[in-house]
Amino acid sequence: MRVDLLSTGRELLDGRIQEANAYRAAGWLFERGFGVGHMAVVSDGLEDLVQAMRQGLASADALVCSGGLGPTEDDRTSQAAAELCSRELVTDEKLLGQLQARFAEWGLAWTDNQARQARFPSGARPIENPLGTAPGFELDISGRHLFCLPGPPAEFTAMFRGPVLERLERLRRQGGGGEFFQGRILRVFGRGEGWLQDTLAGVEEKYTGLELGFRAALPEIELVLRVQAGEPAAASRLLDQVERDIRRRLGHHVFSRGSATLPQVLLERLRAAGRTLAVAESCTGGLVGKLLTDIPGASRSFVLSAVTYSDAAKQSLLDVDGDIIAAHGAVSVQCAEAMARGVQRLSGADLAVAVTGIAGPDGCSPEKPVGLVWFAVCDARGCQTRQLRFPPRDRDFVRRLAAHAALWLVLRRLAGEDEPAA
Amino acid sequence: MRVDLLSTGRELLDGRIQEANAYRAAGWLFERGFGVGHMAVVSDGLEDLVQAMRQGLASADALVCSGGLGPTEDDRTSQAAAELCSRELVTDEKLLGQLQARFAEWGLAWTDNQARQARFPSGARPIENPLGTAPGFELDISGRHLFCLPGPPAEFTAMFRGPVLERLERLRRQGGGGEFFQGRILRVFGRGEGWLQDTLAGVEEKYTGLELGFRAALPEIELVLRVQAGEPAAASRLLDQVERDIRRRLGHHVFSRGSATLPQVLLERLRAAGRTLAVAESCTGGLVGKLLTDIPGASRSFVLSAVTYSDAAKQSLLDVDGDIIAAHGAVSVQCAEAMARGVQRLSGADLAVAVTGIAGPDGCSPEKPVGLVWFAVCDARGCQTRQLRFPPRDRDFVRRLAAHAALWLVLRRLAGEDEPAA
Repeated sequence: MRVDLLSTGRELLDGRIQEANAYRAAGWLFERGFGVGHMAVVSDGLEDLVQAMRQGLASADALVCSGGLGPTEDDRTSQAAAELCSRELVTDEKLLGQLQARFAEWGLAWTDNQARQARFPSGARPIENPLGTAPGFELDISGRHLFCLPGPPAEFTAMFRGPVLERLERLRRQGGGGEFFQGRILRVFGRGEGWLQDTLAGVEEKYTGLELGFRAALPEIELVLRVQAGEPAAASRLLDQVERDIRRRLGHHVFSRGSATLPQVLLERLRAAGRTLAVAESCTGGLVGKLLTDIPGASRSFVLSAVTYSDAAKQSLLDVDGDIIAAHGAVSVQCAEAMARGVQRLSGADLAVAVTGIAGPDGCSPEKPVGLVWFAVCDARGCQTRQLRFPPRDRDFVRRLAAHAALWLVLRRLAGEDEPAA
Repeated sequence: MRVDLLSTGRELLDGRIQEANAYRAAGWLFERGFGVGHMAVVSDGLEDLVQAMRQGLASADALVCSGGLGPTEDDRTSQAAAELCSRELVTDEKLLGQLQARFAEWGLAWTDNQARQARFPSGARPIENPLGTAPGFELDISGRHLFCLPGPPAEFTAMFRGPVLERLERLRRQGGGGEFFQGRILRVFGRGEGWLQDTLAGVEEKYTGLELGFRAALPEIELVLRVQAGEPAAASRLLDQVERDIRRRLGHHVFSRGSATLPQVLLERLRAAGRTLAVAESCTGGLVGKLLTDIPGASRSFVLSAVTYSDAAKQSLLDVDGDIIAAHGAVSVQCAEAMARGVQRLSGADLAVAVTGIAGPDGCSPEKPVGLVWFAVCDARGCQTRQLRFPPRDRDFVRRLAAHAALWLVLRRLAGEDEPAA
């Protein structure tokens, strides 16, 4: 079943905002076994909208539109849908009442143009908006299905992932597509797509109905498992079986299932183990701390990060011996270990990790190329050091890989293992 | 003159990659006075491509395509363009030679399918690719103009911003559009779009040929000035005049022209003044350090950041008096000042800035709501403190605003001023 996507709004056509609703919807559709053939962005001109809707429904079984359902004159999606199928725009009195009640509840001033949001082409079925004021709607046109959802990303997401995907699956079953699709995401770190493809060679062929996809969520990789089966329980069983097989092949490179990222998984393991962590950063410049504190409640396990970007700071703050830096440089196994020991002393944390490397484009030499990074992880058992070399694509790339590798090494240390991260 | 945009590739339709070439091209087109009416993403199926190209050229004066010019079977853009205008695909022998030479130069293995990249519809004019192997081309079809460029973003960008924009401007002049458009960007921090609109009320009307646009580059705002004039020199003069007027109205909220972001501007001013900076971070968790060290060469001015996320770390590392935290809490003017003084002592830096606040969703109270942040900036003249309240939209939003506000306050301090940041 093919589902196309249409987004509207002038701000998407002049560089102000990057289209994201259709992009994300495409990923969710892929997971559920729907194909997307065409995505378009059009302005909010009535004729452009009608034409884009007509073209979309000519090629696809369903078209999902985003935007243009608000209260202003520029919001013409309902009107375009009505013109498309030559129907009247009618006010849904029940929705109008709900809309007015919500305005009262949220303390917003009601203005007459707000009532536009309760006007739909006759015959349309409203789709509730759990987060905002503008409801969406579905309209069946000559056996094809038009869904119109509001543009604010949180609202679009809630309505698309809930009622719209459910409805699309029902339509597919009714249309004789008796198969059921289910997706699952495994999150992978420490290996590239090439290695994954080699290591997973033959898996797709081994299981009937399985399709594997990769999505870069740099520096993590999302491995998308999609299975097709006669009914939901069979799909779940097949997914479980495939997941076991894949985990056996990829080992600890699979660090979570679903949406939990590496910093989340590490903080959760630290909390479960009752351990605290301190960080000493050079080339990552604060990024390790930033990644950990992206997660609310990080302070339960994360004590501090000493961002010692200059050599002087490594000495004054972490008590790194000036002779070490003079003899081996700041990017060296000796300096990494001294930094980790220094921050462990300073913080009293159970675990400490240090990162020092060449992020580029400056500061490199033949012996120390861009992408070379030293790590040290210390705990009560002692210190473990490791050198990694990341592809010197650009500064941001090296720093992101290095910061995630630091978290990964702590995660491996917590698990009592001692494996390379890349 | 209307220019539409088309991107091709299956990875853009299944959630793997978010379309970005057309998005950015739309911004550059806006700056130069072109209108974009429609953007589309289609798969690499030949029929889909031909149809999308036909539709694009039916509505717009020019269509710029991205992707599908590589050496593999999936790369069908040249073939689609040839079918569209019923022409032959012919090998450009000169380009083929250049391609083979480039492979030799870069040490890449030549395979026969690489020759596909030198095959264009007859009559097409090649567009040189300064960064990759696949050239682009331009084709005139019944008075409309089709541009096909490779998909890798760096290659697309170089070719679009150079030869394609130049050619579009020439076509506009030839078509009787005698006017010349020129754009300029001013970067603004510390005020929202609403305030900007109020403060700039009447500016657009005052200057014939001026159009103003806003682009959120959160938490900075890009103010896009676009002028239309008879010839380039007149456009530049008008832009200079408008810029002076706008700077007078917005004062120090305009912190740079062009692409220099707040961390870049601050590091440049620190370097020029021969001053060093140290940071003490609580709620931003390392983000201030990360923003500064995004810029190569930051170590010339940035000494260290003490990311003291826990109360214990504030005491042990920055010597904040435990009584201060007990009496006023970690989010207080007293704690902010003690943190800044602590990191100044520790680092010996000329300037020190501290940030402590409630990023949410936890840790707030009626007196200390999410979004409340305290700052302190210390230098040889003493310490200056400030409380700011950011809209509590989400954790990431509050942290980004807080980190940038810290940089902004240091910038103001360096300039000897003492103004609120928001």
